[in-house]
Amino acid sequence: MIEEKGILFVLSGPSGVGKGTVRKALFDKDTALKYSISMTTRAKREGETEGIDYFYKSKEEFERMIEEKKLLEYAQYVGNYYGTPKEYVEETLESGKDVFLEIEVQGALQVKENFPQGVFIFLFPPSLEELANRIINRGTETEDIVNNRLTEAKKEIEMMDAYDYVVVNDQIDTAVSKIQSIVRSEHCKRERVAKQYKKVLEAELG
Amino acid sequence: MIEEKGILFVLSGPSGVGKGTVRKALFDKDTALKYSISMTTRAKREGETEGIDYFYKSKEEFERMIEEKKLLEYAQYVGNYYGTPKEYVEETLESGKDVFLEIEVQGALQVKENFPQGVFIFLFPPSLEELANRIINRGTETEDIVNNRLTEAKKEIEMMDAYDYVVVNDQIDTAVSKIQSIVRSEHCKRERVAKQYKKVLEAELG
Repeated sequence: MIEEKGILFVLSGPSGVGKGTVRKALFDKDTALKYSISMTTRAKREGETEGIDYFYKSKEEFERMIEEKKLLEYAQYVGNYYGTPKEYVEETLESGKDVFLEIEVQGALQVKENFPQGVFIFLFPPSLEELANRIINRGTETEDIVNNRLTEAKKEIEMMDAYDYVVVNDQIDTAVSKIQSIVRSEHCKRERVAKQYKKVLEAELG
Repeated sequence: MIEEKGILFVLSGPSGVGKGTVRKALFDKDTALKYSISMTTRAKREGETEGIDYFYKSKEEFERMIEEKKLLEYAQYVGNYYGTPKEYVEETLESGKDVFLEIEVQGALQVKENFPQGVFIFLFPPSLEELANRIINRGTETEDIVNNRLTEAKKEIEMMDAYDYVVVNDQIDTAVSKIQSIVRSEHCKRERVAKQYKKVLEAELG
């Protein structure tokens, strides 16, 4: 009945909070969302696949895209670039599908500047202790990097105020279900749908 | 983990849209919401019960409560008073429970003035034809009253702009599930929870 554009949802939060895990669990349940795959210059980790986890680019390739303004956001994080190709997001929204970004806090804030009509969800750690454990258990980082990430994470939590929603990641299933509720309720927001509903009525009245 | 006050949800919409049916279906599924029973001076209809559907009051009793400012809202509709006792709502929210009001559009707009932190949901008819059918099928009204109600309903739809969400009542189950998503996502709104989350972290950091 109602023709509607897609909504851009941005899931972000401190390093180690479990953004990737929650995003994967969400996409297992919800096949209507389109995941926007980020570009990065960081090395591929074991188990990751090009075009599924990230698009892996050289520093030179990435910087050319920055110059050509082909990124919705980009950020340097622990010495690497991460970014979101703009064109894919805009085309998908235009076609009526929702786009879901899962990115670092720096990138999310940039998307908010460039695309304020997006919906910004902050994934919150159950506790700082738990956050440290998760970073350590990832097992890919040295102690120095773990400490840096934890300091960084505390700063990132301060940036929560820029977000629309806060979801605590104590249970993955609960976090996923809350995000699904956010997606659903955003599609009922009056400022998104009122115009179309009024058009439907006017058409009916002749 | 997070101590939180309840949220006031207000479900409203034009006469005949099915507010009562949706509210009952919602309460069958969700026992955590507290329903705020309205007061009215209109005659009890067949099948209705005092203290379940409404508190039925005389005109004199109702007007005394208006004078004493004991109502969160009140309105006259087709010659009768409808209103919401203030004290019950405030105490329930304070205890951490959500309150759910199902009221006419006039009353909802007044609640919005007196309690702007509430969340306002507009139940939208699938079509005007369907709305007319529903009013007629209720079978309690004369043709004149049906026509008046339909004219009123069209005006009420114009008031949609004062609401936070619009939910179309084409399928009761879908409408209920959307309202449940709205309730859930409102509890994740950053402006409601960020302060408490920050306190939790500060306590942890000592």
